[in-house]
Amino acid sequence: MLFVSRYFLSSLMISLVSLAAEISAAKSDTLDLTELRRLYQGPVSDWPKAKVADGVNPLPLGVLKRLPRPPKGSMGAKRIMLGKRLFEDPILSGSGQIACQSCHNRELGWGDGLRWSFGDKRQMGNRNAPSVITSGYRKHLFWDGRADSLESQAIGPLTNPVEMATDLDEMLARLNAHETYPSLFEAAFGKEGVDLDQVVAALADFQRQLERSSRFERFLKGKHKLLSDQQIHGLHLFRTKARCMNCHSGPLLSDEKFHNLGLTFFGRKLEDRGRYLVTGMDDDLGRFRTPSLRHVSKTAPYMHNGILPTLRGVVNFYNGGGGVERRPKGMAADALFPRRSDLIGKLNLSKSEREALVAFLKVL
Amino acid sequence: MLFVSRYFLSSLMISLVSLAAEISAAKSDTLDLTELRRLYQGPVSDWPKAKVADGVNPLPLGVLKRLPRPPKGSMGAKRIMLGKRLFEDPILSGSGQIACQSCHNRELGWGDGLRWSFGDKRQMGNRNAPSVITSGYRKHLFWDGRADSLESQAIGPLTNPVEMATDLDEMLARLNAHETYPSLFEAAFGKEGVDLDQVVAALADFQRQLERSSRFERFLKGKHKLLSDQQIHGLHLFRTKARCMNCHSGPLLSDEKFHNLGLTFFGRKLEDRGRYLVTGMDDDLGRFRTPSLRHVSKTAPYMHNGILPTLRGVVNFYNGGGGVERRPKGMAADALFPRRSDLIGKLNLSKSEREALVAFLKVL
Repeated sequence: MLFVSRYFLSSLMISLVSLAAEISAAKSDTLDLTELRRLYQGPVSDWPKAKVADGVNPLPLGVLKRLPRPPKGSMGAKRIMLGKRLFEDPILSGSGQIACQSCHNRELGWGDGLRWSFGDKRQMGNRNAPSVITSGYRKHLFWDGRADSLESQAIGPLTNPVEMATDLDEMLARLNAHETYPSLFEAAFGKEGVDLDQVVAALADFQRQLERSSRFERFLKGKHKLLSDQQIHGLHLFRTKARCMNCHSGPLLSDEKFHNLGLTFFGRKLEDRGRYLVTGMDDDLGRFRTPSLRHVSKTAPYMHNGILPTLRGVVNFYNGGGGVERRPKGMAADALFPRRSDLIGKLNLSKSEREALVAFLKVL
Repeated sequence: MLFVSRYFLSSLMISLVSLAAEISAAKSDTLDLTELRRLYQGPVSDWPKAKVADGVNPLPLGVLKRLPRPPKGSMGAKRIMLGKRLFEDPILSGSGQIACQSCHNRELGWGDGLRWSFGDKRQMGNRNAPSVITSGYRKHLFWDGRADSLESQAIGPLTNPVEMATDLDEMLARLNAHETYPSLFEAAFGKEGVDLDQVVAALADFQRQLERSSRFERFLKGKHKLLSDQQIHGLHLFRTKARCMNCHSGPLLSDEKFHNLGLTFFGRKLEDRGRYLVTGMDDDLGRFRTPSLRHVSKTAPYMHNGILPTLRGVVNFYNGGGGVERRPKGMAADALFPRRSDLIGKLNLSKSEREALVAFLKVL
């Protein structure tokens, strides 16, 4: 037995309680994150159920199945090398100064890092150059989905007067008269004479093999150390509270659909009617293709009009419930006035949750 | 008095000791950082002494004194507006397709985000486009310092055949025949007829007013919450263990000198002799201008040849002691073989120190 003053013991108890509380506060997050890590290190089928809106059927996140690569030295491989050279060569442009690469540069996430892109005579477009790294896997191409294959897509930028401003006949004449291209085309396609189908086929074949594995994919394949606790927290938010899987699901991280996020600028200077310009259907007004989020940290700035410079900005945008369209005066009765998708709404993510989500987006 | 079992008390004491140790470990960093914050929130003159090599006299870090701005509506203000328009106008290039802005875009930190820049007919240069945001404050321009004023600098990219490939007489003829430029020049310079001095003066006046305050400057002016503890730790490392102030000091964060960092690629494919190409002096072989670190987080990729894509990479580079030149076979006796500056050497920064340094670089 021991004699202890009541004062000493009670002060000791107070210290102990306050110390324990301090540690418990510091550890409560840690504990949850440990449990989250345990969950997410298991098979995707055992992950917590994704939280999405009624009627949405998200595909599970997963590894993107690579498109087949032609064997070395084959005509297919030669088409890819030819496509790379064409992609980088300004000979395809009307002025001889602009290459596909001008707006789709590997060093800039296969985009150009700019809000809007510059084309012929440095005219400025009104949309953000999408990364071409996922383009071989997409159902729709362009922000408004007006092409459904890389082959048909290529004609767009080539002939657009504010982009490459090319006369296709002149372009083919230049290629056919070129010192080395005719033999490269012959080796890649097995016949004489450069034609347009070959040009777009080579460009498409090159772009189809750009896709690369991501840190998240390596995590899914078992390299679990590649994601920090914060990033796993972000993954969980991505699938639940942040509702990202409403539109960004499956290995491609896109539902391949068109949505209106409230960024139409309808009736104002920056108006862009998006998918409506292709289909003419009222419901499509202001809808844009859901981009793939693969390699998204490399493709700033964001949105069809490039108005969000950072991933933090994108997360804040969705956290606030998306864009709010101001209705210009006198437009109250316009039936076309665009309606933001019901799939987005305020998320109430805390600051640390937003940070975790951004940290996760960086590994996609 | 109170009776307590010896066992209870001793187990209580053990808990208490282990809890306290745990907290103390968690707090030891915090305590140092609190002291650092206290030090660095005081006047610059009271900061810890900078650690630099013998013979180096670093200027104190501080707020950059802004160049005077002309009053609104004055001819000076008109020159700036004219300079902005010229800076963005491909009319200055031989092809009519390239503007100064092509390689110096505000959205890309007044550079182009690329390792090397593209010029006429998409020819690729071999140096990284430096940001022009600090250019009005610099003693030397270009990586090799071959110009000493923005006015004399401008002729370089304009006439360089792999950059804007301009014939200056033709360019002036185009400007003089233009619909609006003659009147804009007259309003800005007070006399008729566009000449080369006016073109370069307008471009220079525009660039001189690009510089902006930074978060670090606002911290220095008393907004101490703008820097996190980690960033203040980074500031301290910048001035001490990381030896950044050997070359990056003063409000401009540059010593305005030329140094060899071991990135000359001497005798190899990527060889760049740097300052030597200007002075012809052996000692200048492989030396390049110390860039200003103002807004450095916006100006990736880094180094004269753009080979480091991130600030983390730059910090790792210096931490390892700089570049190591491989001596090509048969070059053992070449007296010109470049010698890395003695100002750099291994730093032994821990991972968290490197992270703190990067965090600090982001506020410059």
